Amino acid sequence: MSEVTRPTLSDALTERMLELIRTGGHRPGDRLPSTRELSQRFAVTTPTLREALRRLEATGAIEMRHGSGIYVGADIERLVLPNPNMREIHAAQLLELLGARIVIEPPLAALAAEHAGREELSALQRVLDEAGRHLRGEDAELHDANMTFHRATARMAGNSVLHEVVDSLLTVHGPEQREILQIFDDRRRDYEEHLAILEAIEARDAAQAESRMRAHLVDVKTVIEHRLQSPR
Amino acid sequence: MSEVTRPTLSDALTERMLELIRTGGHRPGDRLPSTRELSQRFAVTTPTLREALRRLEATGAIEMRHGSGIYVGADIERLVLPNPNMREIHAAQLLELLGARIVIEPPLAALAAEHAGREELSALQRVLDEAGRHLRGEDAELHDANMTFHRATARMAGNSVLHEVVDSLLTVHGPEQREILQIFDDRRRDYEEHLAILEAIEARDAAQAESRMRAHLVDVKTVIEHRLQSPR
Repeated sequence: MSEVTRPTLSDALTERMLELIRTGGHRPGDRLPSTRELSQRFAVTTPTLREALRRLEATGAIEMRHGSGIYVGADIERLVLPNPNMREIHAAQLLELLGARIVIEPPLAALAAEHAGREELSALQRVLDEAGRHLRGEDAELHDANMTFHRATARMAGNSVLHEVVDSLLTVHGPEQREILQIFDDRRRDYEEHLAILEAIEARDAAQAESRMRAHLVDVKTVIEHRLQSPR
Repeated sequence: MSEVTRPTLSDALTERMLELIRTGGHRPGDRLPSTRELSQRFAVTTPTLREALRRLEATGAIEMRHGSGIYVGADIERLVLPNPNMREIHAAQLLELLGARIVIEPPLAALAAEHAGREELSALQRVLDEAGRHLRGEDAELHDANMTFHRATARMAGNSVLHEVVDSLLTVHGPEQREILQIFDDRRRDYEEHLAILEAIEARDAAQAESRMRAHLVDVKTVIEHRLQSPR
């Protein structure tokens, strides 16, 4: 097959795979036919099929589990995705990312105060309890608990697209955030600001939840700006 | 090569390609070595290399141009991407998408009023002039001009991550938005609301720009909600 015709074939195969998932009514986690069955069904060679599968895998539409098979991916119905190719984030991008979070997350905290169910509130409390236990412990575990706090708050706003946006921002944030934890040395202040946000959400005080989330993120951004201007 | 070792090899190749781009200091639009050179350099077969390339192509990190070569993609440094596998959007998702836009776009209109340069303002005016010319014309052209208006306003806010978020939301929105244009039958009202937003931005009135953008998007969502409840 020539270099010129291959791309078109791979495009067409990607479409046929998506159609197979849609028309089959398959949901995330459902198992799809094997690569052998698929290449027979579509009358293509395995390498050509695998190009299309890798492409769908890279964007979360399918999951290929070693030795097990092909499954519908958890992200197939998401509208917005984190860039899976980000490996490091520059200082300027990090500040823009925090600037974006300052715009997006505070109104979500307000919506969370209006919409959160009792079980969601207990779950959020447990996330902070977990963070509290890691305050003197490992960076990675404290980091995970803190990110879970921000994701859970966004989810409580009750809009799946907004949740996807925040999830995407926090995912690309991930590796760099650990460095922030070390920079933003007052771990306890960070923790207490999270607690204050939870309290406002529990009190159903949307304006307070919004302003506390904004103040918290502005704090983080300010500390990082200072550090970037005067590195050790 | 077995089913079990292939995924790992493709993962590793994807990393090596990203490293090659990064360490080579390549920028979007730069030409990369040919598939032949790459498979020699990485000592892999062409099908295996192509799996990694398709994966990078699907997420905008590279562009493969027929008969021309491989180039660094425009999206390689984006943090947030639209899901390239979205083919249709359900009514519930469309309303959530509009709900998300109602939260995100108004504060960006406010930031645009504060930050927009004179040239950006003239460009935005030209976009609306273009929309005005298509008011009685083709849906597709009016749609493009309207989406350009929303993208340009988001860009004027001066934060590239926020621009990526809005761009992602409008991209998945795309096909469905045309249907909205037909549903939201008062094209002139839509146009006049855009004009009013531009006026507030030009007047550097952040609060007015924000409230007009919010009212505009709430209008669109309300009309669509009514139509979905009482289909023709």
